[in-house]
Amino acid sequence: MHYITKITNFSASHRVFNPELSDEENEKIFGKCSNKNGHGHNYKLEVTVCGDINPLTGYAIDLKILKSLIEKEIIEKVDHKNLNTDLDFLKNQIPSIENLATAFWQILENKLPSGKLYKIKIFETDNSFVEYYGN
Amino acid sequence: MHYITKITNFSASHRVFNPELSDEENEKIFGKCSNKNGHGHNYKLEVTVCGDINPLTGYAIDLKILKSLIEKEIIEKVDHKNLNTDLDFLKNQIPSIENLATAFWQILENKLPSGKLYKIKIFETDNSFVEYYGN
Amino acid sequence: MHYITKITNFSASHRVFNPELSDEENEKIFGKCSNKNGHGHNYKLEVTVCGDINPLTGYAIDLKILKSLIEKEIIEKVDHKNLNTDLDFLKNQIPSIENLATAFWQILENKLPSGKLYKIKIFETDNSFVEYYGN
Amino acid sequence: MHYITKITNFSASHRVFNPELSDEENEKIFGKCSNKNGHGHNYKLEVTVCGDINPLTGYAIDLKILKSLIEKEIIEKVDHKNLNTDLDFLKNQIPSIENLATAFWQILENKLPSGKLYKIKIFETDNSFVEYYGN
Amino acid sequence: MHYITKITNFSASHRVFNPELSDEENEKIFGKCSNKNGHGHNYKLEVTVCGDINPLTGYAIDLKILKSLIEKEIIEKVDHKNLNTDLDFLKNQIPSIENLATAFWQILENKLPSGKLYKIKIFETDNSFVEYYGN
Amino acid sequence: MHYITKITNFSASHRVFNPELSDEENEKIFGKCSNKNGHGHNYKLEVTVCGDINPLTGYAIDLKILKSLIEKEIIEKVDHKNLNTDLDFLKNQIPSIENLATAFWQILENKLPSGKLYKIKIFETDNSFVEYYGN
Repeated sequence: MHYITKITNFSASHRVFNPELSDEENEKIFGKCSNKNGHGHNYKLEVTVCGDINPLTGYAIDLKILKSLIEKEIIEKVDHKNLNTDLDFLKNQIPSIENLATAFWQILENKLPSGKLYKIKIFETDNSFVEYYGN
Repeated sequence: MHYITKITNFSASHRVFNPELSDEENEKIFGKCSNKNGHGHNYKLEVTVCGDINPLTGYAIDLKILKSLIEKEIIEKVDHKNLNTDLDFLKNQIPSIENLATAFWQILENKLPSGKLYKIKIFETDNSFVEYYGN
Repeated sequence: MHYITKITNFSASHRVFNPELSDEENEKIFGKCSNKNGHGHNYKLEVTVCGDINPLTGYAIDLKILKSLIEKEIIEKVDHKNLNTDLDFLKNQIPSIENLATAFWQILENKLPSGKLYKIKIFETDNSFVEYYGN
Repeated sequence: MHYITKITNFSASHRVFNPELSDEENEKIFGKCSNKNGHGHNYKLEVTVCGDINPLTGYAIDLKILKSLIEKEIIEKVDHKNLNTDLDFLKNQIPSIENLATAFWQILENKLPSGKLYKIKIFETDNSFVEYYGN
Repeated sequence: MHYITKITNFSASHRVFNPELSDEENEKIFGKCSNKNGHGHNYKLEVTVCGDINPLTGYAIDLKILKSLIEKEIIEKVDHKNLNTDLDFLKNQIPSIENLATAFWQILENKLPSGKLYKIKIFETDNSFVEYYGN
Repeated sequence: MHYITKITNFSASHRVFNPELSDEENEKIFGKCSNKNGHGHNYKLEVTVCGDINPLTGYAIDLKILKSLIEKEIIEKVDHKNLNTDLDFLKNQIPSIENLATAFWQILENKLPSGKLYKIKIFETDNSFVEYYGN
């Protein structure tokens, strides 16, 4: 079993806040991340798939195909977007990297041409990241 | 003469568009960067100062002081903000890294405790940056 | 279950040697790392915590709180220090990254406001690191 | 148990193709990676070993010894080489990072002076890597 | 005047040798870089253009256009290629980064839609690079 | 004229203080950098040389030779050392990166086999660096 990872990037804005809370509560919990006009990040997304080597190709999964899948299913939808307002699959969710990772897992889980989704890793900054294994 | 650089980071959102143009013209010129609900970046800011070595300290400029100055005058104002709406010094300007670099130069130029401002460098992504030397 | 990581940095000096061995034995085992006047590194520390998403915040753990905890409990104690002489919690231990990781685990294990400590990772240089999972 | 990793680098060329397939089939499967005159990469190799701390040294494994082993057994053989033609241990294999990782595992598995081989990780570019745990 | 840089990447193989010298002389001068079957690198290319800010756009040069130009004129020609055999514009030249930088300069110099070419910078590895300013 | 750069690394400890000042004055000026038992860094050193391309080799300077020179003249002397006590060429100087850059310039200036020394750049951390051009 080999674990293969493709790294891609996207830039998006968000405001981290819970609409069911008051402004004061949001400010207290989320601090500057709840700035009303939003802020943004260059996100780095790492998708890891596992599988056995196909003797025809020497590949566990073809990284060209994995990259195309990630770009079509995720990057085109989130790059240069506002995560609070522009994405159907994040509607009514706080756009934290935890919720993003869960949403990306659900999108990719059944779309893989070969191999099995193993991990979603998202960096929000160079110093903060989440990892999610599907449960 | 030694050239001393301090690197800092901030996260902000923006929409790149010219309010004097139509939506179609903005879309044509700026593409996805003009998305109406904005997007964002982790910006990296490099400030370079030059000066002669002070024999008392061995420093051309004290990086602790330079860092405090950059944080107070720039980072606190732009981090976790919307560059279109939240900054007085960018009012009526398109929030490109060129205009940001010019604005940061004007803010820092006369505030240095020692040394002389030499360069402002801003990365918008890992693959795109501007350098500005004050003229 | 989501795994959340915060990365921080500190700069410290150390001398890697066993005081119960002779100078010749230390030189033989540790080479230039046992230089009598010490040497130093910029260490990178990654602390990973796991937990379920809190629906109120969208967070498994609040990275602001995790960062404050790491800075108070670890960075303030080790940054710009000599690991052989300045730290009570490393007394009588060889300051290897293995022993550092174990010590940091013990410090953080019971201090987390939410979530559960999962991993301590320490880079000594860009090319060498340790990972520790608590046992 | 601590997990210790040493990172090394090598530069090599390869052509990704299956000699049992026609040129058209290779072009269809491997695209530009099957360019007849080859192309190349700066590979990054991470070798992870696990073990208990030796109280004499504070080390789970001596990174100087691990580095020497990796350089002698792997880097000297693959650096500045053509992976299709210059390596006995890759003969008759497609030089994918999956097959490289498997081959490196077999080379190192029984050569470790202490500790136990845990993982081989190979980056082919900054954005693509494989991880292999020996089965 | 602002200086704008776009960073792109390509992977290629080469053999560094002078066909007018004997094998022994090539081996003596170029060492392992003259390995007969070649080796390869992930090259990083930084193209810097300078110009005044266009008040209509806030840009000195549109990075989307600069990126398209670099990809069309350079990356498509050199990525996943053999620099000794596959490139007309390097015919009869030793494929060093110095000669690559000169060739890229000549390709881009007169093709810029706005702004003026200022610098070509090429990394051959993370630790080696050339900079060229056109003369 | 091409500018060629080789990047190397070393790890060293230092204490930033002026022995002619009192402990209180040192603490006031240098803060935690003057900790009596010292601290340390992984330094990154970039040496840039300029010259014309030698048509025999395609090189402005042979990076293998430049690397050997830097390793022999600088890295072997400073790596895993204490900059305050172990280096003759820094005797009676405050071990700031400004003074290090000046000292390295003086060491390398007349030792180059070809080309001309253009710049010394030293990173003390990922976020702080000095550049020196010899005057």
